[in-house]
Amino acid sequence: MPDPEYDVLAIGNAIIDVIARCEDEAIERLGLAKGGMTLIDTDRAVELYDAMGSALEISGGSAANTLAGLAALGVKCAFVGQVADDQLGAIFAHDIRAGGIDFTVPARAGDPPTARCLIFVTPDGQRTMNTFLGASLHLPPASVSDEQIANAAVLYLEGYLWDPEEPRAAMRKAIEIARAAGRKVAFTPSESFVIERHGDDFRDLIAKGQIDILFANEHELATLTGKDDFDDGIAAIADDVPVLVITRSDKGAVAVSNGERAQVPAEPIEKVVDTTGAGDLFAAGFLYGHVRGQSLEQCLRLGAICASEIISHYGARAEANLKAFVAEKVG
Amino acid sequence: MPDPEYDVLAIGNAIIDVIARCEDEAIERLGLAKGGMTLIDTDRAVELYDAMGSALEISGGSAANTLAGLAALGVKCAFVGQVADDQLGAIFAHDIRAGGIDFTVPARAGDPPTARCLIFVTPDGQRTMNTFLGASLHLPPASVSDEQIANAAVLYLEGYLWDPEEPRAAMRKAIEIARAAGRKVAFTPSESFVIERHGDDFRDLIAKGQIDILFANEHELATLTGKDDFDDGIAAIADDVPVLVITRSDKGAVAVSNGERAQVPAEPIEKVVDTTGAGDLFAAGFLYGHVRGQSLEQCLRLGAICASEIISHYGARAEANLKAFVAEKVG
Repeated sequence: MPDPEYDVLAIGNAIIDVIARCEDEAIERLGLAKGGMTLIDTDRAVELYDAMGSALEISGGSAANTLAGLAALGVKCAFVGQVADDQLGAIFAHDIRAGGIDFTVPARAGDPPTARCLIFVTPDGQRTMNTFLGASLHLPPASVSDEQIANAAVLYLEGYLWDPEEPRAAMRKAIEIARAAGRKVAFTPSESFVIERHGDDFRDLIAKGQIDILFANEHELATLTGKDDFDDGIAAIADDVPVLVITRSDKGAVAVSNGERAQVPAEPIEKVVDTTGAGDLFAAGFLYGHVRGQSLEQCLRLGAICASEIISHYGARAEANLKAFVAEKVG
Repeated sequence: MPDPEYDVLAIGNAIIDVIARCEDEAIERLGLAKGGMTLIDTDRAVELYDAMGSALEISGGSAANTLAGLAALGVKCAFVGQVADDQLGAIFAHDIRAGGIDFTVPARAGDPPTARCLIFVTPDGQRTMNTFLGASLHLPPASVSDEQIANAAVLYLEGYLWDPEEPRAAMRKAIEIARAAGRKVAFTPSESFVIERHGDDFRDLIAKGQIDILFANEHELATLTGKDDFDDGIAAIADDVPVLVITRSDKGAVAVSNGERAQVPAEPIEKVVDTTGAGDLFAAGFLYGHVRGQSLEQCLRLGAICASEIISHYGARAEANLKAFVAEKVG
């Protein structure tokens, strides 16, 4: 097997985050599911944007955020996702390429426009996401190239994109190519509601040994396994997943691999400003360690460090020089 | 004279800031004028954006930033500026209205697109701005309504917009309306290069007593008066301007009004992240005090406090609840 051209290739939403502060009262008044992610249609997007305060726009998308972190750490990456041929699409494409990430899927002409996520951030730093998927819905299986997938050591997939039909077919195709090429498949279900809709698919992939690295938070683990107890949840699934990584917010993170279990506390930070992207950057830090062959505990610690950078400011793309930030923390 | 509907009406660029970190080396390599503002055409905009790192987008525009600060402090405002009928224009319009600011100029169809400013922020927090004026160039005099201008206690004008012909005509028209209605005119030349091009216009307006409140930094004061010495510069102009306000970066600010002189130090802050908007928010704080009839020194201090908020993060729109921030600092 030749050395892969990429360390990580990700398939995910190509989305612009629209971020504004709000009070808890507004979350209630607007009928938002605090802390969660809700898919919204055009009408609801207009309604919520009208109700939203002055915002900042920054490229987002769960898997794309993870890649941006990996690329900032020097990992060679490629991204597959669908933007529209509009200003927001141009911004997304610029930002992903500016990080040195290969991105070759052509922009899609006509409606719908590039995806956006309206994110309301409450004073406690919690983010409440409302996603208009737009062009992201239309990522065609043809955008997945056999050669590119076979050339990536790790294929990373975002569960959010399992919901719409075309991207799901693209991801299934990518899994087949990656496995046939002897590459690893990493997966995050992204959110409990995705598991509620597609849990059978995910459990089937896991049971068939098609997922090598699984990232989830403790709620997603419970939804996926049907076990409310944390250790029961891990026990239910650890044998079927070579590397299982579970994040627990301020309680840190746990990883289990081939019977070895490691854990780390959350990285201390001065003030949680905006938790958007915490999980995405945790995955970036972990995969950074993983592709460099570091220990389970080291991988977890790198994840916790990267997550701590992202929650100290608005947006899910690093403000700090992430490489220097990690180097300083690791010591 | 009836009570005005607005405390402040501003005419300025309707622009989206595109902000990215960069090293000093890149400033040199790209041939940028560090710390300054340069007008760029489409080709240069494409070239610089290609060379720019992953960015964040946030509404900007000097006078619009000042209004956003004023509105956050509870001041009733209106904005006049030109966006195009595109996604960035919709973002600008949303953000200005989300602050409670009246903005009724219709978006302009067709090319050029909405203005944007590519801002490179170096590790010292200095911003280097490259402005593509786009639709802002085409603000027509017809967008200035007699009734609206006459209904604002203060008309605030941004020098950047004196350069293109149509907006200059719009601003000249607005000055006439405001003076005829017995309202005050506040003006900032925005940047030394604007004074180099249009200094005769500005000196003429000042000599004729058409500017009631003049905001400038010390470099602009020197360019405007031809006096290198700070006090000589103030002496040269103070008699012709009822309220003269000069900012001096980390040396604080000075104001002179009817022979009274006040000064304040810069507000101490932990870390300068990005100086974009420091002058704009200083003007917001000062005008906030001014429309509430506060003393010269109180107005200066409010300016310094608002500037300190904006330079502690990326972007020229407040992240903090500006009203609470000011209340806490003023004590």
